[in-house]
Amino acid sequence: MVDFVPLILRLKKYLPEEHILLRDEQRVPYECDGLTLFKQKPGLVLLPDTVAQVQQILKDAHELDIPVIARGAGTGLSGGATPREDAVLLVLSRFNRILEIDEENLLARVQPGVRNLAVSEAVADLNVFYAPDPSSQIACSVGGNVAENSGGVHCLKYGLTVNNVVALKVVTIQGEVLEIGSAAPDAPGYDLLALMHGSEGLLGVVVEVLVKLTPKPQAIQVLLAAFDDVGKAGQAVANIIAEGIIPAGLEMMDKPAIQAAEAFAHAGYPLDAEAILICELDGSDSEVEAEAKAVTQVLTVSGATTVRTAGNAAERQLFWAGRKSAFPAVGRLSPDYYCMDGTIPRKHLAAVLQGIRRLSEHYGLAVANVFHAGDGNLHPLILFDSEQPGDKQKAEAFGGNILELCVQHGGTITGEHGVGIEKINQMCIQFQNLELQQFHALKSAFDAKGLLNPGKAIPTLHRCAEFGAMHVHHGEMPHPEIERF
Amino acid sequence: MVDFVPLILRLKKYLPEEHILLRDEQRVPYECDGLTLFKQKPGLVLLPDTVAQVQQILKDAHELDIPVIARGAGTGLSGGATPREDAVLLVLSRFNRILEIDEENLLARVQPGVRNLAVSEAVADLNVFYAPDPSSQIACSVGGNVAENSGGVHCLKYGLTVNNVVALKVVTIQGEVLEIGSAAPDAPGYDLLALMHGSEGLLGVVVEVLVKLTPKPQAIQVLLAAFDDVGKAGQAVANIIAEGIIPAGLEMMDKPAIQAAEAFAHAGYPLDAEAILICELDGSDSEVEAEAKAVTQVLTVSGATTVRTAGNAAERQLFWAGRKSAFPAVGRLSPDYYCMDGTIPRKHLAAVLQGIRRLSEHYGLAVANVFHAGDGNLHPLILFDSEQPGDKQKAEAFGGNILELCVQHGGTITGEHGVGIEKINQMCIQFQNLELQQFHALKSAFDAKGLLNPGKAIPTLHRCAEFGAMHVHHGEMPHPEIERF
Repeated sequence: MVDFVPLILRLKKYLPEEHILLRDEQRVPYECDGLTLFKQKPGLVLLPDTVAQVQQILKDAHELDIPVIARGAGTGLSGGATPREDAVLLVLSRFNRILEIDEENLLARVQPGVRNLAVSEAVADLNVFYAPDPSSQIACSVGGNVAENSGGVHCLKYGLTVNNVVALKVVTIQGEVLEIGSAAPDAPGYDLLALMHGSEGLLGVVVEVLVKLTPKPQAIQVLLAAFDDVGKAGQAVANIIAEGIIPAGLEMMDKPAIQAAEAFAHAGYPLDAEAILICELDGSDSEVEAEAKAVTQVLTVSGATTVRTAGNAAERQLFWAGRKSAFPAVGRLSPDYYCMDGTIPRKHLAAVLQGIRRLSEHYGLAVANVFHAGDGNLHPLILFDSEQPGDKQKAEAFGGNILELCVQHGGTITGEHGVGIEKINQMCIQFQNLELQQFHALKSAFDAKGLLNPGKAIPTLHRCAEFGAMHVHHGEMPHPEIERF
Repeated sequence: MVDFVPLILRLKKYLPEEHILLRDEQRVPYECDGLTLFKQKPGLVLLPDTVAQVQQILKDAHELDIPVIARGAGTGLSGGATPREDAVLLVLSRFNRILEIDEENLLARVQPGVRNLAVSEAVADLNVFYAPDPSSQIACSVGGNVAENSGGVHCLKYGLTVNNVVALKVVTIQGEVLEIGSAAPDAPGYDLLALMHGSEGLLGVVVEVLVKLTPKPQAIQVLLAAFDDVGKAGQAVANIIAEGIIPAGLEMMDKPAIQAAEAFAHAGYPLDAEAILICELDGSDSEVEAEAKAVTQVLTVSGATTVRTAGNAAERQLFWAGRKSAFPAVGRLSPDYYCMDGTIPRKHLAAVLQGIRRLSEHYGLAVANVFHAGDGNLHPLILFDSEQPGDKQKAEAFGGNILELCVQHGGTITGEHGVGIEKINQMCIQFQNLELQQFHALKSAFDAKGLLNPGKAIPTLHRCAEFGAMHVHHGEMPHPEIERF
């Protein structure tokens, strides 16, 4: 067991007592993040509210060899902020101020604990918004978004978090402040800005974020298309992009997802369709009008059985309502579900869906598919009942197999939820030892003692050896699932 | 002196003799890249054409402690590929094949020696193109573009090289192949893909690049606006962006640049204007038409004295002709010119131009300004006569001061040309020791012996101490140029 007493004695000199949570009942609320499958009480919870406090905490932890796990709003889905008994949980929720809004350069300087949606709310009067919109945007924090490089429905057009942040202030495990990036484009030197994004708290603690603001589009239109075949729907997605149109959002749902969503939200989805596409277009009035026409034509030529255009704002919201309630809707079909998050090159969509169907039969567990189709980001929802003996294990194995299937088709094991602890085994499939070694070398360049968020995101080579991965790499082993199932 | 003999003995086993350039007259053509101010004969020039050869060369150089400098087409403007007598120059010009065009996913897999423009030419039939278009695109190579993270006139809308590359194959100094990124979005693990971009050959040697292809726009329109004040033109740029319009290109020229360009290209530029803006819009027919109307209105409201819309393709080309010939045109005004490349947040445009004017008076050297205004990327051209004693030194000092001015206003010392050897002193101003230390740690994680492109891009702390930089950092020292000049 780690002895926290020497650290606590130091902390009391610069951190108010009420921001040091020692008692059991104070620590329990922090025992997991959005990955509730894994719970562990943190050894110590700290709630600093100045950069100087964060610097001193990290400096002290570094000197005393105590691990530190940073936590934003705790909404992460892959366990990036899962606590440990032997570690400090550094909670950044008190860093909740918007420090500056720079109207001329369309930038906002915010603290990491600011909620994602709060940024857009604060600048709404200026007719601009902060573009990344993960589903959890009402609760998740900007700092957490940086750590996981969060996306959202609109990242097809507006990019991931890394494309919407221009500078960071980061505290290293040594307690030093690094200033990374700038308000002007393309800083020289190695691209530490991109490197910090998605690094899941393993390289430093973000204490300030300079985000881009995006002018609000004048007009929005939403189209809903039905297909009698999932492959055709996938081809339609490719055809829209090939037309030079980048929709604000382009979502796909398969039959089980459609039926669950329709029963829940009454969005008017066609119940006999094998797949639907929801396509949101935004821009100037005339641009949206022209694109809506063009997309309608592409969808029709691609074999859509019906294409509907929302007649008004209410209908637009209705088209989205089904998609947005897909997760809770599926939740009504089954006591439990497990949401996966892989990506694939668009052209393999039909093949991967077929593979998922085979796996579904193999495990005897139903699956509903919801996609950010435009950028090939799948969210298969595996239905199971944790009361049924063995179901949970089957769901986990099924989920792992789906991610392996994505890798086999040249894809990745995570689109936007991160690796955390959830997918750390699949990292052994995504990467060869060589790349993992390079990751570890890079980690050492920031945190030689390995104190920041240990055990997350990047597996040790030892762990991969134990996992006995097949080392399927970049699709080199063609479709081994065919032999396996 | 480095003894190349042991290396040459090894090389002869796997590299054809004609690809090992030993003789003086063979090495002379490689004595500089696009930064012709600095020339040095490389110790040895190698022309491999397989990945296995590159691996073996790097492995051998690593074992024998011989530095290696990778070179693409040699068009770089900051000396990123300037050779050294004690180093191998690894020329990748024979890696000139387009390996695969993936029409469905809009991707092309190319070797690093492929010319930038050759990618677009190879896919022209598919009605797509490779978006990054540095001015040297007819000659520069895709691998060099990755090394310098090249931009171009259209990077405002289409992004830098890093935004248009999805995967890389990189050989480490140990001779191992790293596979980075994938055809699917958002790979897990640390973002090595972004890290490699702009790393100027210090972390590895790129041997394969998977680039995004972009659908060609249906329509293009070009507007030309004149202003009687540079500040108003700068404000017009901000106003266009604030309107939610991202032009394909948005360029500014000041009076000296306008007059030089007009005398050379007869583009019809207004000679009495203090600044002109050239705004290119692209997209669907109706989108471009609507945007052209909106931009015309914004320009007028922002105080443009005239706004002209190109009536046809010939006029569009004419509007661009002046801008595109600005560098040679300025070259006619003066025996020599020195092209700088800094970036600033857009709102400081007028202040920085004023500062450049003060510096121009101080040094007694004229300056013409050409800008990628949309993303705040300045290209001041300092006019001088290398035959005049002291002029060259004054031009270099003037250039250095301009970059410092950019940093003081929250900008950077390079937009798209890289640091190389040209701007290595200014890196001491851009960054504090702490960030430089982090860069060196990161370099060590890839190349502990420091054999890849030594002396480029990242200065040693010792060098910065010698440079005696003022450590102006992120604009913290307000406008010191006022005291200095």
